[in-house]
Amino acid sequence: MFEIDPAFLATSEAVGDLALSQVRLHADARFPWLVLLPRVSGARELEDLADGERAVLLAAILRAGAAARAVAGALGRPAAKLNVAQLGNITPQLHVHVIARRPDDAAWPAPVWGFGVAEPYAPTARETALAAARASLGL
Amino acid sequence: MFEIDPAFLATSEAVGDLALSQVRLHADARFPWLVLLPRVSGARELEDLADGERAVLLAAILRAGAAARAVAGALGRPAAKLNVAQLGNITPQLHVHVIARRPDDAAWPAPVWGFGVAEPYAPTARETALAAARASLGL
Repeated sequence: MFEIDPAFLATSEAVGDLALSQVRLHADARFPWLVLLPRVSGARELEDLADGERAVLLAAILRAGAAARAVAGALGRPAAKLNVAQLGNITPQLHVHVIARRPDDAAWPAPVWGFGVAEPYAPTARETALAAARASLGL
Repeated sequence: MFEIDPAFLATSEAVGDLALSQVRLHADARFPWLVLLPRVSGARELEDLADGERAVLLAAILRAGAAARAVAGALGRPAAKLNVAQLGNITPQLHVHVIARRPDDAAWPAPVWGFGVAEPYAPTARETALAAARASLGL
């Protein structure tokens, strides 16, 4: 049975569900940052998906990229670069990070993982981010 | 016309060519680390590829994952986790990192990018790594 690791529940909130994956907004106002969680029980690596599932995940990565750009734009910080990564060293449940980056962000040009301390969204910015992501994803 | 950014030439060497992408071994003996470089002039993001090219790249990512595992095994440090990432904050030419990780590696559980200083391969280990990657990839 598929369950979301509590680590994701504690650090992100649901944007909505695509065909295979749940899209979540990572709770760090420093970076427009979405996380895709394929609903495949026990999957830890891309290898663990069937070919068709991987193709659906790839399509979701593209849509999440557009959504991260939409969040970045709605927050007044249009993206200069996307970062897409499937790591899982700390939380092994298969997930893909899709992050909008720009040269004036807190970590640039370093990767965001493990960089400093997450900053909570102000309530208005959080609503703006969620609305922009949902509009872009058609959710 | 497609050209490989000199940053890749300086920090990696060619393993061989797949259908769309060149596979390169990153010159850092701390991590079994391959880089895929799609031969698509001007591409910086996954968005810049055609759908068919992205599907071919996804297949190459899977093959590179198996090859990174093969390199790790041949070097006596079997992989516990794969890290797959498309970042490009420093060198924007589209490329995908595929790295075999394990809990006793130098950076674990942090990401490898920007972590410490690359360690050159000893000549024998370099040959072992290249041979294992080529055998896995059928190159």
